[in-house]
Amino acid sequence: MAYELHYWPTIQGRGEFVRLALEAAGAPYTDVARGTDDSARGESALLRLLKDDAQTHPPFAPPFLKDGAVVVGQTAAILLYLAPTLKLVARSEQARIWTHQIQLTIADLVTEVHDTHHPVASSLYYEDQKPEALQRAADFRKARLPKFMGWFEAVLQRNPCNGPGRAPHLVGARLSYADLSLFQVVEGLRYAFPEASRKALKNAPRVSALHDGVGMHKRVKAYLESDRRLPFSEEGIFRHYPELDG
Amino acid sequence: MAYELHYWPTIQGRGEFVRLALEAAGAPYTDVARGTDDSARGESALLRLLKDDAQTHPPFAPPFLKDGAVVVGQTAAILLYLAPTLKLVARSEQARIWTHQIQLTIADLVTEVHDTHHPVASSLYYEDQKPEALQRAADFRKARLPKFMGWFEAVLQRNPCNGPGRAPHLVGARLSYADLSLFQVVEGLRYAFPEASRKALKNAPRVSALHDGVGMHKRVKAYLESDRRLPFSEEGIFRHYPELDG
Repeated sequence: MAYELHYWPTIQGRGEFVRLALEAAGAPYTDVARGTDDSARGESALLRLLKDDAQTHPPFAPPFLKDGAVVVGQTAAILLYLAPTLKLVARSEQARIWTHQIQLTIADLVTEVHDTHHPVASSLYYEDQKPEALQRAADFRKARLPKFMGWFEAVLQRNPCNGPGRAPHLVGARLSYADLSLFQVVEGLRYAFPEASRKALKNAPRVSALHDGVGMHKRVKAYLESDRRLPFSEEGIFRHYPELDG
Repeated sequence: MAYELHYWPTIQGRGEFVRLALEAAGAPYTDVARGTDDSARGESALLRLLKDDAQTHPPFAPPFLKDGAVVVGQTAAILLYLAPTLKLVARSEQARIWTHQIQLTIADLVTEVHDTHHPVASSLYYEDQKPEALQRAADFRKARLPKFMGWFEAVLQRNPCNGPGRAPHLVGARLSYADLSLFQVVEGLRYAFPEASRKALKNAPRVSALHDGVGMHKRVKAYLESDRRLPFSEEGIFRHYPELDG
């Protein structure tokens, strides 16, 4: 049976980290809210499940995944759930917890990226918190982004399976969901902060190489070129406001 | 062999979620950075491991746990790693992923609590971002806190194992690490936002009951009364700035 992915239909957002995993694995799935509204599809189907009082495992927010009777929310938990079946994580318990630890650090970075344009309240427009956003983005560019990129670079450098002449991986010698998520973060950073991310990636050549390697993965490439891949926009997490790029 | 918990020695912070799990399970552990500085203890030992270039699984930040040769960072990943051994999670895969999903939602709430006093930059003092903090805290009290508490209440209400006359649990019929973390969040919220949390908890009686139940757990109670439990303070995540409580 196909997985059902529930996420807002017009943005990449956090749903994209799950989409990339499903696409890279060639797993059958329905992007529920992007269908035409009817009994089982469209944004109304997402909202119905989100507000369903009979759900014993209610998701707090999209994205969430429905796999038969199982409903899982929280991006990192969805990936933790899917990865063994999709073969996007190694078998050993230690590799799995390490992959998840990296994913949670990526999740922290994603939250900080979001907060560069929404430091005061998610419920307010960017335009209503622009002075605060300028401050927060400056700190992000100067302190946080280099710290995160330096950490990912160190992880890639210390992975004994990585070597010259081939694209590096965060864990072991094979593609994991953390690789896919770091790819998406680099894509997003280049869109939102072209100048700051150019500088940060100059000091993180292995992160760049990972990004390029994932982008050449056959199924990932096909997905990125399809109309299933939504464009970045100023409604998502990674937003290009030139003033926030310094 | 005793677990080694590495966390800043003077605050509860995110380390407290791990401490509570270790204490509730009666697991042997060393709170490394709280020892006197020597070759194996004190904050210098924490910093040494954090900056050790030979670590193939370097933690991004404290807390991190050392279990023999295994090093695990990220609070939720540490709990995911520890819980089966400490018997703080049910056996079924579905219960485990659900417990983790709840934990990640707790982690999101904790980040939002932190950002009420540090909306612009963690590297700045509260006093340097007070106007922004007032705005962010107002949104937190009005929109976010009730949303989170409403969700935890719904989770408790829909857990078929909960019933009248006994303390509720988030998952199944036994204490899990998510219960311990929600207990800590309620403790922290009551300290930081006494007025806002009083209102929010009035609408979340099951969350209050869970808090009270966990607080009466024999080993948790002994821990809370010991000098191993650090007090809340204006250096941690949950800070009492009366102006942020409305």
